[in-house]
Amino acid sequence: MSMYPERERQADATQPDLASADIDLAERLFEELRRRTGTDRGITRASYGLGEQVAHDIVRREGRKLGLEIEMDAACNLYMTMKGREEGPAIFIGSHIDSVPMGGNFDGAAGVLLGLCVLSGYARAGIRPPWNITLMVIRAEESTWFGASYIGSRAAFGLLRSDELDEVKRSSDQIALGAAIEAAGGDTAFLRSGRSFLDPARIAMFIEPHIEQGPVLVERGLPIGIVTGIRGSFRYREAKCLGVYAHSGATPREYRQDAVRAAAALVVELDKAWTRLEEEGADLVVTFCQFYTDASEAAFSKIAGRLTFALDVRSQEAATLERVKRIVADTAARIETEHRVRFDFGHLTGSAAAKMDADIVRSLSALAREHGIRAMRMACGAGHDAAVFSAAGVPTGMIFIRNANGSHNPDEHMAMADFAEAARLLSALCLDPPLRA
Amino acid sequence: MSMYPERERQADATQPDLASADIDLAERLFEELRRRTGTDRGITRASYGLGEQVAHDIVRREGRKLGLEIEMDAACNLYMTMKGREEGPAIFIGSHIDSVPMGGNFDGAAGVLLGLCVLSGYARAGIRPPWNITLMVIRAEESTWFGASYIGSRAAFGLLRSDELDEVKRSSDQIALGAAIEAAGGDTAFLRSGRSFLDPARIAMFIEPHIEQGPVLVERGLPIGIVTGIRGSFRYREAKCLGVYAHSGATPREYRQDAVRAAAALVVELDKAWTRLEEEGADLVVTFCQFYTDASEAAFSKIAGRLTFALDVRSQEAATLERVKRIVADTAARIETEHRVRFDFGHLTGSAAAKMDADIVRSLSALAREHGIRAMRMACGAGHDAAVFSAAGVPTGMIFIRNANGSHNPDEHMAMADFAEAARLLSALCLDPPLRA
Repeated sequence: MSMYPERERQADATQPDLASADIDLAERLFEELRRRTGTDRGITRASYGLGEQVAHDIVRREGRKLGLEIEMDAACNLYMTMKGREEGPAIFIGSHIDSVPMGGNFDGAAGVLLGLCVLSGYARAGIRPPWNITLMVIRAEESTWFGASYIGSRAAFGLLRSDELDEVKRSSDQIALGAAIEAAGGDTAFLRSGRSFLDPARIAMFIEPHIEQGPVLVERGLPIGIVTGIRGSFRYREAKCLGVYAHSGATPREYRQDAVRAAAALVVELDKAWTRLEEEGADLVVTFCQFYTDASEAAFSKIAGRLTFALDVRSQEAATLERVKRIVADTAARIETEHRVRFDFGHLTGSAAAKMDADIVRSLSALAREHGIRAMRMACGAGHDAAVFSAAGVPTGMIFIRNANGSHNPDEHMAMADFAEAARLLSALCLDPPLRA
Repeated sequence: MSMYPERERQADATQPDLASADIDLAERLFEELRRRTGTDRGITRASYGLGEQVAHDIVRREGRKLGLEIEMDAACNLYMTMKGREEGPAIFIGSHIDSVPMGGNFDGAAGVLLGLCVLSGYARAGIRPPWNITLMVIRAEESTWFGASYIGSRAAFGLLRSDELDEVKRSSDQIALGAAIEAAGGDTAFLRSGRSFLDPARIAMFIEPHIEQGPVLVERGLPIGIVTGIRGSFRYREAKCLGVYAHSGATPREYRQDAVRAAAALVVELDKAWTRLEEEGADLVVTFCQFYTDASEAAFSKIAGRLTFALDVRSQEAATLERVKRIVADTAARIETEHRVRFDFGHLTGSAAAKMDADIVRSLSALAREHGIRAMRMACGAGHDAAVFSAAGVPTGMIFIRNANGSHNPDEHMAMADFAEAARLLSALCLDPPLRA
């Protein structure tokens, strides 16, 4: 990860009116996206499918109007570049524009349109930014379609595996990922070679704007979040607590092997550990996403002999994840003895945490203060392409926009006034980036 | 409830060898029942269906061979009486002989065959018992078929309602209860009149032998249980904990309305209350029989917004049930505030506890001691026809026979040696009953 010296403000005669980002353009394009990729309920933009292609075509059309330099890589990621006053590494603004089925119009697309309206604002005002700025429209971020994460951004760095191209199928139509990429005009031979389209050394920084997917900004009454890191995770997607079915009226307490009582004890004990760790300052979220007795075998008048659950634990700190993993194992062992049950946690999956670049976080905070943009620093709980750039050694940042009702559903709600605040912040950053060492 | 004076042993020249109950007969009939009502897995004797009728016919055939007086009431309950030395109220030995689908061969049938082999033993040894003894083969005890409890025994006391006869349908074929009773040779006009076939004053006592449906006798290594009472209950069959679905990675602890954590807290708090109440000497079992997040809406990466559960609380003491009901309400209210969720407990159902007659319990204990039959006193956690007799004011007792693997399944396992111990105890009781005041 490259380092910056202490940030130094540049006096620049071309310093624009920061309110000049082209919010009207974004509003028109959100409307066009909603109309052309809408369904009965919400919008659907399948990865490498029709909806995503329509969205790419809309953005490319607008990029051409703005006179941006347009490129496409072997995975059909789109790059649209505005030339800066200096040659050298470019500022990348990137986001995906696919969606989950019946999703909301803002998840992903807001980041792309934020970049576009900032560039349109510069073009309108005749501003040349100091460095090249590339708007990257990333393919296939939503894992719901191909069951694989970050397909587009990984492909851009040569990280997509051949077996994924062949074996991974789209949930909606069982088309293989490789075939879908070819159909969209991509080049799977290049992808199979493992060559990287992007050179991390040629990217000054990667900024991913995104609607917040949790309720923090709404609850705190702030339009903007400056992300400090993306939480890593460990996950037991199909764990089981195994007891013995027995008569609920005729079996005394001491002879029970009750999967519900045992699993509930695990939930409550982890809840206590969560409180303890938060008090110590750890970043942590713990969720039992699914939690169910067997639909056919559990019945009234029976003690449950089996309970299945999905456990999702996330933190920005690898050490915290390790601690919690140990707490889960130790607690389960204690409960097994006490309740005479057995836990089978099944397959463990997870992802590494990604730290946002400290200088970018500091710059965004300083610029927000300077321009009167109300913002807070916060963790990002969901995975994003930003994690791939960060892992590739690119200084990475994320800007969150306040959004009600979560994401991945048609009720997500971002106010355009908040979007405009994010545009002011992004515009300021691109005109006054932290200097590379 | 009638009262007895202190039990007084009778010196009687006809005191038989108590080992003479006709265990061979019972063994043959268990085998015939298994053969003639067996299915791929276990046995099926539908209430007022073919399997139950086959079983009634077998028992009636054997009763006729023994020269018993045979009667049938309007609900097709079968009464087979051996005359005693004295006229007056009879000792009733009763049990059902229907089963759940794919059930075990012993639940219900063991009680009927126990009575039959005791009477056969008397006949074989030329013994006339002091009082009349009536073996009652009760219809339709299993609520799985008609969704109504104790159909046969309630009908015998004129307690079956006309709306039940018309509206309640058998789960397997949608035949109305009234039609099913007519088809079996019953008289629904009599049942609709509400007249009682049985006169509680003419029943000296009602004894229901049954396999134990819990693991207590197996765990304690004892063949026989002497039941002190049948637990009453309160039940929330479809309660809900309602929170809000949200992103599992992006929603901090303080903004969650997590149905799983809240419902688990209720389970653990009730578990603590159960421990406390047991330490105070209360009789209690608490079971969350079903406990599940929504199969379609809960998903990985989501905090669950809804959890449905069935709560079954049973105790021999009405006061304990009331206390627990209050603890449930108070605990839920506290959790609602702490977790920002809502509990909707839905419809409350329940049943009253039934006390077994103290003199019968005392007599059975004394006889067991006297004849070297290893037995313990215990609560009965499941409902039985004995509760109907007790509620009608008949002095009632139950004898449990050790049984492994619970009941209502083909794996239930009663050893014939334990059955023989129960026959010795029942035989002793019938020859030396506690005297009526």
